[in-house]
Amino acid sequence: MGTVLSVGHNVSAEVASLPRSNDAARPLDGHRERVLPGIWKMSFGTAERATPVSMRQFLPAKESLAKLTVVEDAPVSIKAELSHRGCVLRIPLAEGERVYGLGLQLYSHEQRGKKKVLRVNADPHSDSGDTHAPVPFFVTTRGYGVFIDTARYATFYVDALHTPEEMAEAAAEPPRKPSAAASSIVIEIENVAGAEAYIFAGPSMKEAVQRYNLFSGGGCLPPDWGLGFWYRVAGDSTQERVMEYAKQFRERRIPCDVIGLEPGWQSHAYSCTFVWSSVFPDPKSMIQSLQTMLFKTNLWEHAFTHPTSPLFDKLNGHAGNYAVFGGRVPDFAEAAARQIFGDYHKEHLVDLGVSGFKLDECDNSDFTGSWSFPELSRYPSGLDGEQMHSVFGLRYQDAILGAFSKAGKPTYSLVRCSGSLAAPYPFVLYSDLYDHRVFIRALVNSGFSGLLWCPEVRNGENTEDLIRRLQSVVFSPVAMVNAWYIANPPWKQVDTDKNNRNEFAENWQHTEDLCREIIGWRMQLVPYLKAAFERYHDDGTPPFRALVMDYPHDERLSNIDDQFLVGDRMLVAPVFAGQATRRITMPVGRWCDFWTGETVEGGGSFEMTTRLDRIPVYVKWGSVFPIGGSGSSTQDPATRQISVRVYGDGSLPFLLGKRDAESGLQLSYDGAKSKGNAVEGASGYSIKNWEVMR
Amino acid sequence: MGTVLSVGHNVSAEVASLPRSNDAARPLDGHRERVLPGIWKMSFGTAERATPVSMRQFLPAKESLAKLTVVEDAPVSIKAELSHRGCVLRIPLAEGERVYGLGLQLYSHEQRGKKKVLRVNADPHSDSGDTHAPVPFFVTTRGYGVFIDTARYATFYVDALHTPEEMAEAAAEPPRKPSAAASSIVIEIENVAGAEAYIFAGPSMKEAVQRYNLFSGGGCLPPDWGLGFWYRVAGDSTQERVMEYAKQFRERRIPCDVIGLEPGWQSHAYSCTFVWSSVFPDPKSMIQSLQTMLFKTNLWEHAFTHPTSPLFDKLNGHAGNYAVFGGRVPDFAEAAARQIFGDYHKEHLVDLGVSGFKLDECDNSDFTGSWSFPELSRYPSGLDGEQMHSVFGLRYQDAILGAFSKAGKPTYSLVRCSGSLAAPYPFVLYSDLYDHRVFIRALVNSGFSGLLWCPEVRNGENTEDLIRRLQSVVFSPVAMVNAWYIANPPWKQVDTDKNNRNEFAENWQHTEDLCREIIGWRMQLVPYLKAAFERYHDDGTPPFRALVMDYPHDERLSNIDDQFLVGDRMLVAPVFAGQATRRITMPVGRWCDFWTGETVEGGGSFEMTTRLDRIPVYVKWGSVFPIGGSGSSTQDPATRQISVRVYGDGSLPFLLGKRDAESGLQLSYDGAKSKGNAVEGASGYSIKNWEVMR
Repeated sequence: MGTVLSVGHNVSAEVASLPRSNDAARPLDGHRERVLPGIWKMSFGTAERATPVSMRQFLPAKESLAKLTVVEDAPVSIKAELSHRGCVLRIPLAEGERVYGLGLQLYSHEQRGKKKVLRVNADPHSDSGDTHAPVPFFVTTRGYGVFIDTARYATFYVDALHTPEEMAEAAAEPPRKPSAAASSIVIEIENVAGAEAYIFAGPSMKEAVQRYNLFSGGGCLPPDWGLGFWYRVAGDSTQERVMEYAKQFRERRIPCDVIGLEPGWQSHAYSCTFVWSSVFPDPKSMIQSLQTMLFKTNLWEHAFTHPTSPLFDKLNGHAGNYAVFGGRVPDFAEAAARQIFGDYHKEHLVDLGVSGFKLDECDNSDFTGSWSFPELSRYPSGLDGEQMHSVFGLRYQDAILGAFSKAGKPTYSLVRCSGSLAAPYPFVLYSDLYDHRVFIRALVNSGFSGLLWCPEVRNGENTEDLIRRLQSVVFSPVAMVNAWYIANPPWKQVDTDKNNRNEFAENWQHTEDLCREIIGWRMQLVPYLKAAFERYHDDGTPPFRALVMDYPHDERLSNIDDQFLVGDRMLVAPVFAGQATRRITMPVGRWCDFWTGETVEGGGSFEMTTRLDRIPVYVKWGSVFPIGGSGSSTQDPATRQISVRVYGDGSLPFLLGKRDAESGLQLSYDGAKSKGNAVEGASGYSIKNWEVMR
Repeated sequence: MGTVLSVGHNVSAEVASLPRSNDAARPLDGHRERVLPGIWKMSFGTAERATPVSMRQFLPAKESLAKLTVVEDAPVSIKAELSHRGCVLRIPLAEGERVYGLGLQLYSHEQRGKKKVLRVNADPHSDSGDTHAPVPFFVTTRGYGVFIDTARYATFYVDALHTPEEMAEAAAEPPRKPSAAASSIVIEIENVAGAEAYIFAGPSMKEAVQRYNLFSGGGCLPPDWGLGFWYRVAGDSTQERVMEYAKQFRERRIPCDVIGLEPGWQSHAYSCTFVWSSVFPDPKSMIQSLQTMLFKTNLWEHAFTHPTSPLFDKLNGHAGNYAVFGGRVPDFAEAAARQIFGDYHKEHLVDLGVSGFKLDECDNSDFTGSWSFPELSRYPSGLDGEQMHSVFGLRYQDAILGAFSKAGKPTYSLVRCSGSLAAPYPFVLYSDLYDHRVFIRALVNSGFSGLLWCPEVRNGENTEDLIRRLQSVVFSPVAMVNAWYIANPPWKQVDTDKNNRNEFAENWQHTEDLCREIIGWRMQLVPYLKAAFERYHDDGTPPFRALVMDYPHDERLSNIDDQFLVGDRMLVAPVFAGQATRRITMPVGRWCDFWTGETVEGGGSFEMTTRLDRIPVYVKWGSVFPIGGSGSSTQDPATRQISVRVYGDGSLPFLLGKRDAESGLQLSYDGAKSKGNAVEGASGYSIKNWEVMR
């Protein structure tokens, strides 16, 4: 990970005076400064002091940035003006230029032609910009990115917005698709007297994203167990019941690394006490027993602190002036509040062996019935509620991460809100929404903005839906079934009521067999995923990303938001329930079917007949590909006995762990007849066999 | 209607200076003034100049206001403070007090516990406050209303929002439903240095709504033809095809008053020219022919003016600085722009015989792909785009209304955006959304905010869905089928593609028979609806309204948003496709089944088995009820030969037209054996027969 800033800094909201009349907007002089290789900062007027950059807790990964392609000149220029409403920024758009990003956008992929208000919202139901993780950063197919350093709900008009006069001058028939003409991106930030923006050179769109991620501190590196399979048990589980779940997984030979507990573990959950409920009489022994069975433990919580919590009084003077669920809202913009909160978590939970948390409800759930603090809230740090919403998810992550750092332990956790400069955070986003198609689009889009996303599985409309969702989630940052509202695993019964009455489906063992196999795929993927995350850390390449990021000039791929790339050589095309066939669009080059090794010529599209027991996956022709061994969890040494698959001519070697001898693995293949060469790491990796795919 | 202000006034946006530091919010002194009977104005700080009240075009209906219950003291007090973000207002809420209103809210009925941002949005998909017609006016079950006089997207926290300290003081277990405790409504208006609010006394919730509607100018009075049946023809229709539709309606004996034309009538529609397309070679003769067949003509349009329109140059200097669809956006906040726009419409369209318009796309459709102007727009009147969005629908209606006023003709029109103080406007809202359940909730909620709503019918999932939707729409302000995307009436074929290929359903004549009967119900309702609108005009009672408005203290009715009241004696409970049974909750008192006369004791709930050919409708026991005669349109004198139904003991006389001798009708019944007494108006109404329901 990047460097964590050791001291908190004072943040205070400060807004200089705006034009307060009927005057026209006045232009603002811009100051441009090269701050890092290929990164320029532009400053206009008097920017606010509380911004994502001013509050950052990770420093840029300078050494890694220095290794990217050298770009001498800023690839784009920004203009600004000040109106009575706030600051307006303009960035020119060329004819045909395409725009991506703006955070976890659930309802659209390409952003050109859209208006987006980057408002944090737990229940985003339309393509208006509302999301769990808005990020004022975009990249374009011209190979650059721009980050607006603001904690306000900025409005992006990613569009032409021609004046009528310009339009009248143009041809008689104005285009309805404005992307056909040169225009501009216009960004309005209300209630500020200036702004700072960062320009990220490419020269490719992917390198612009890499630069943004490295500027953020570089991508996170999850521990191995984070890449195994996760299962969240029913919310009303007792300590005894949790152990039964654990035994069941081992007895049924279903791999599982992480058991997650839902609200019932706490003595009071809305708001939270962060104290164990009486139905968990000996949590320490439970966590130890789980560890003995090779399980890690993850705990649900949110930050709103109940009056009966030991933290309540400690947060006096370090909280907002509005309650949520009757609980205090910690002022996580303050180092003091983060430390109080983090220290409590270390002492009472992390030191007990808890490996991670699920940070719920931190995403402005106020449209779900006042489930959050108002934008007009005030915090001792000087932030108002709007700014706090934009940074709350990340600063909450900082508090939790502080607990693990002090304990000297890694974590890989879940969070329902994130935002700007998030790449170094080992936290994966999730949502209470549950549309499989939307979940996949979120996964595709997450890579543009330094975010990780889990298309979690709960149950399914039917068995097919369950299988399709599970096949997707094992090709994502966290392979998780979140069965918080059902008593039994969904493969025993997808119907919620029947599941809770222990009425299992007639053929549940068959469904379990299918699911066991799919979860097994995840275990096989772990070494490959580790390498993908290693790149995320080292050069900022998102481990999960859109096709257009690697192939920005292939128009056919410009709006493919139901396929994605994993690591440096894999393409996944999830199938949705009900699809008897599925159209797949392949990038240029030669590819191989991951399952059969069959060669697929790229550059075209084809309709494939789906199979319930397979998700379409392709790897680059020539790939040498590690397949992890089977075992009950990644802590099982058997999982490190790998098979090596050789696709095509095996000319693409595989490399893991050049910087981490603990997990090193170097695989190359030197000819169709030979068995290839393998350098195994010190971590216990060993080669079980080589398999040359046809 | 109320008085139309004769002169436009200068409106300019002016924002005085806000606190610009980290200071706490400072309290604002409030000034309270009684402005009309039972209406108080409270002023805080320096309010903006461009507000709904400052821009109003109708004066309050003072004489009608003087007739309401006398209330000496303001029923509630408001406090305000100024922060660096803007102005915050607080209104106390009592334990158990319930809140309704805030405009055309589609996703919730009772507002307590909700956060709502009153943003104009053409595609409201969640319960966040976005709507076609936001209105910063609410009423509560304590019998008062508050109107915040702002054109900003105000945020309403209709909720407790206890501070943590208050919560800690309260009992250990804070309530998750905050409505159980006393709290307050908190309203934030950003970017303003003060605000004005109006308090409307009841003493009942209904009277508070009446007072608001009379303050707005009193309810509109539609012409008779507006209350008949409307049909919008396929968007690509030619003049010849329009006449074929008209003939078909008469041949198939389906009553129809209004034929509506969609975008294809114009030479260019996105943006608009307001000039007839060449496929309408002689619109004047078409409109005259339609009139001869007793049809009125309604034209689709929006306000964004294409460069080839004769209006384009005239609007030079009277338009915003951003184009929409490449067209000029008229500055309708200016009297000059309204006059230019209205005069053109009078001369070229109204004088031709056009009876009304459908004003589309005026509702901030920018989340639908930049289909509107940005909030950062500027207008010559001084308004910015946010303010303009809040008033655009109404000021557009003013421009169109001006055309009809000058021509001395009434109109009844459609609009996709409305807002504050809209009661006098003879315009009915509609939406491109199409969920029947949501459409009924909109109808229920519209009555709280001086709005009229049409749950328009297009086609249906299946015949049942079509029938259910049609049964609902005939009990609404406009009984309309909007068949703009299908070539034939939906009763011939609900499937869009088959309909457009002229492949009719096998049993379409049977479906047509059912629909003819339902449309006939509408014709029968016209006299009753006229009386309901007369009350809307005279005392402000909404013709369509929620049950809770008349029965605010009946907890059982507090969240009934799928039943509604029409006029002074009718209750409608729409059925949704797929409902084999339907739960109905009756207010106290005795009621009669509208169709059978059967007595239904109120005060309870019951599950009824539905019938495809009936929508559950009830009238108050004792009602004397006029049933209009059948005819091809309301212009057919046969429709004025009415039957009088007597329910129960006939002790509730019916009165229409006490103020309008043209349409007068007074019906009372003096005993089970007699035929009752009728005073018929000068309008041609005559009594055909009396029918005593069992």
